[in-house]
Amino acid sequence: MTSPQKSEKDRVIIFDTTLRDGEQCPGATMTFEEKLHVAEILDGMGVDVIEAGFPIASDGDFEAVSEIARRAKNAVIAGLSRAQPKDIDRCAEAVKHARRGRIHTFIATSPLHMKVKLGMTPEQVIDNSVAVVTRARNHIDDVEWSAEDGTRSELDFLCRIVEAVIKAGATTVNIPDTVGYTTAEEYAHIFRTVRERVPNSDKAVFSVHCHNDLGMAVANSLAGIQGGARQIECTINGIGERAGNAALEEVVMAINVRQDRFPYRTNIDTTMLTHASKVVSAATSFPVQYNKAIVGRNAFAHESGIHQDGMLKNAQTYEIMRPETVGVKQTSLVLGKHSGRHAFVHKLQELGYKLADNQIEDAFVRMKALADRKKDIYDEDIEALVDQEMALQHDRIKLVSLSVVAGTRGPQRATMKLDVDGTMRTEETEGNGPVDAVFNCIKALVPHEARLELYQVHAVTQGTDAQAEVSVRLSQDGRSMTARAADPDTLVASAKAYLGALNKLVMKQRRDIPIAAAQ
Amino acid sequence: MTSPQKSEKDRVIIFDTTLRDGEQCPGATMTFEEKLHVAEILDGMGVDVIEAGFPIASDGDFEAVSEIARRAKNAVIAGLSRAQPKDIDRCAEAVKHARRGRIHTFIATSPLHMKVKLGMTPEQVIDNSVAVVTRARNHIDDVEWSAEDGTRSELDFLCRIVEAVIKAGATTVNIPDTVGYTTAEEYAHIFRTVRERVPNSDKAVFSVHCHNDLGMAVANSLAGIQGGARQIECTINGIGERAGNAALEEVVMAINVRQDRFPYRTNIDTTMLTHASKVVSAATSFPVQYNKAIVGRNAFAHESGIHQDGMLKNAQTYEIMRPETVGVKQTSLVLGKHSGRHAFVHKLQELGYKLADNQIEDAFVRMKALADRKKDIYDEDIEALVDQEMALQHDRIKLVSLSVVAGTRGPQRATMKLDVDGTMRTEETEGNGPVDAVFNCIKALVPHEARLELYQVHAVTQGTDAQAEVSVRLSQDGRSMTARAADPDTLVASAKAYLGALNKLVMKQRRDIPIAAAQ
Repeated sequence: MTSPQKSEKDRVIIFDTTLRDGEQCPGATMTFEEKLHVAEILDGMGVDVIEAGFPIASDGDFEAVSEIARRAKNAVIAGLSRAQPKDIDRCAEAVKHARRGRIHTFIATSPLHMKVKLGMTPEQVIDNSVAVVTRARNHIDDVEWSAEDGTRSELDFLCRIVEAVIKAGATTVNIPDTVGYTTAEEYAHIFRTVRERVPNSDKAVFSVHCHNDLGMAVANSLAGIQGGARQIECTINGIGERAGNAALEEVVMAINVRQDRFPYRTNIDTTMLTHASKVVSAATSFPVQYNKAIVGRNAFAHESGIHQDGMLKNAQTYEIMRPETVGVKQTSLVLGKHSGRHAFVHKLQELGYKLADNQIEDAFVRMKALADRKKDIYDEDIEALVDQEMALQHDRIKLVSLSVVAGTRGPQRATMKLDVDGTMRTEETEGNGPVDAVFNCIKALVPHEARLELYQVHAVTQGTDAQAEVSVRLSQDGRSMTARAADPDTLVASAKAYLGALNKLVMKQRRDIPIAAAQ
Repeated sequence: MTSPQKSEKDRVIIFDTTLRDGEQCPGATMTFEEKLHVAEILDGMGVDVIEAGFPIASDGDFEAVSEIARRAKNAVIAGLSRAQPKDIDRCAEAVKHARRGRIHTFIATSPLHMKVKLGMTPEQVIDNSVAVVTRARNHIDDVEWSAEDGTRSELDFLCRIVEAVIKAGATTVNIPDTVGYTTAEEYAHIFRTVRERVPNSDKAVFSVHCHNDLGMAVANSLAGIQGGARQIECTINGIGERAGNAALEEVVMAINVRQDRFPYRTNIDTTMLTHASKVVSAATSFPVQYNKAIVGRNAFAHESGIHQDGMLKNAQTYEIMRPETVGVKQTSLVLGKHSGRHAFVHKLQELGYKLADNQIEDAFVRMKALADRKKDIYDEDIEALVDQEMALQHDRIKLVSLSVVAGTRGPQRATMKLDVDGTMRTEETEGNGPVDAVFNCIKALVPHEARLELYQVHAVTQGTDAQAEVSVRLSQDGRSMTARAADPDTLVASAKAYLGALNKLVMKQRRDIPIAAAQ
């Protein structure tokens, strides 16, 4: 973790915004529990600052930031806040229980944004920034200020406002490339200029925040560091608004692999990158493309004969980093029907899960049931099963039984029994395809207005007896909820995933209001 | 297409290697027809050079390169070739029918590769390169030479060998970052140095070829251009070995959007980028991640309230390019059960399909059948249906009927009737889940050794009555084949996709050999 030959000035702070900029992108909404899980992983892997949400945006965001602040062991927990007193106060309230909290406030500084979005003069923007930074510093010592659309701002103005906010007490100054527009040379130039020209620039850490609209977020981030910035804002898998943010795994590995060009150090335990990628992909239901750098499933795969030949002779011919460095391991056969509870608990620990005893017991029973139906049980099967176990905890609607008749002759029919708050309901419906029949059955049993936004099936492990993992996203009243479920029967997995998403929506309602039954 | 204010020296040649470096990555194997389709799109969108394959690698590659060479209307068609006489001759044979053909030969130039992979001295590598370039020039005027692992080669040696190959007649000199290792400054420096120090460097076009292992392929490619290169090797969706190549859509749009920083021009019709991305994603069954730059489904989506507000006031606040520029259009309701043949043919043309009359007729009948089962028919439904129609043409095994019983009570059962070379075969089997039952049924009816490598389900359009599109990849004897099928019934689509892949494998066998029946 520490490289004694490098001084503190070479240390780059990794600021992860998966839970804020990442979660804010269309379709990536995570539940409270998913956010806590992601935050725990980020905290454990050495992320310096976790931006946990935007407290004023909703009560859900506020609760998530507060709870993450309470639980974090190492990381600074930041909340985002517009440049308004009520935002600052709400953010301070959310992060106050953190061992170390940060208020991150932002305002646009580009001529276009100031004029059309804010309707403010540059002077008003400076006054406003000074006021909110001062207010934030009255709450807390660690205050970050961001110049939204910084890369399209005038450099003279940027220097003036940066000097003012540092004077007001900002300890981190972020100049984001909000629209993913900048180039490496340009971005490095901005940091060099601002740091040279602002007299008190040594009082703050400068920060990069790059979007990937033109595919250059990683290179731009590193150029900013070369220009003197010492914090990188990034996300796992590069998720985020539009084309996303710089990917944490890519910036960190670029620094590690090219120490000759990027002589900096981070605190990240790179062997956790692959696991973090999988957890975020599962929580958001955003697939990672096969050829994604570092964490894609092809990132370390070699097909062509020439490459394979070279690899056999010397791995360095085509590999600039070892797969183990980023936590890639071969899927190994782990458990079967004869495996005991001890082996199962050990495997759960190895996979990084921490479960309560009753959860372990339930998961163990389901693992044994799976082992009866499936010859070999792989790590991925266990992960699918445990993730589902954790999701099931508070469900008000549970699948009791399902049978489906399908095929070319149609119409397809589904018969389903559900346990709704302890009462059994049964129905048979037809549909346009078996999945449609299953979903129609749920709609008949539990009438609701939610709209199906996403339906996705993945085989969790290879082979035709694989567990199918299904993702379903439902949206209602502008809020969307995603759930996953795994079962060797795709249709059962589909029913469970749909019910999972429906349960999440229902859970937003009060528990004492009965769930509507069919008329 | 032309910018009169820019001279020929600002023109950047776009060399697409989707069909070579892209197709060579694990799992991306395309069929002959899929390759022709992709090549036609690349040719139509203004790609200057299409690397169509590696002719010596297999008869399939040779046939694909030859046929693409025959059909291409505008693009130069290149074939790859190792630095061996037989490779050069085979490549020349493959590209000879092109209006303009190119032989692209490569040899490793880094100390590590020369020593452990080639077992050759630097002098031998120079002699070998001169010999093959000379041989290639005896076949054709357009010869590209690549210094494999160029970015880890010694600059002095690179200068010597580049001078020698240009003297031998190489018209394009490519210095690839084979392992995705370089940085922008370093890569620009390599091109500046080689071009300055090699006396005859003005006789050749220099080329970049970047891999994305550290997330910097696009920035590195553009840095190479700033260093004096004038050809970019890239792929649609950035597919390719490991973390893939620079994405064509990203380098092209970076040049277009940042003309102030990258004052170059390409011939690419950017409005075709989205279509090209979809076709390549479908042909390879490689999903495009949601936040992929330019072509991801979130690339132009805005969720957060702040961004939406800004967008409503002025799109430029958060958008640096208009979605229409890259061919993004809203999905529009197009056809229903009352639509006539004329509207259908018109829609096919609009979607860019060119079908024979009998194919149109078959697709029309299937569209009407779909319209009976599904309220609204969207562009994506038509695309799924036509792609399947094209795949079905030569099938020896056809699905006649299927019925499936599934659910929580298990075991699941499938009953299937297949038409195999005109003979009916029927079977009923059980399975671990309905998909397993369906696949077991096929295995019982048509015994085979192929292994299931991939099983994937996508809902083609939204809503529960959506067509499900299923991808199946089978592998046998080191060759893998992917097929897709669409049907409102996921299980029927699964059966069709599996049969599609099996048909592709079977089609490699001689037609007069009967397909094995169960014993």
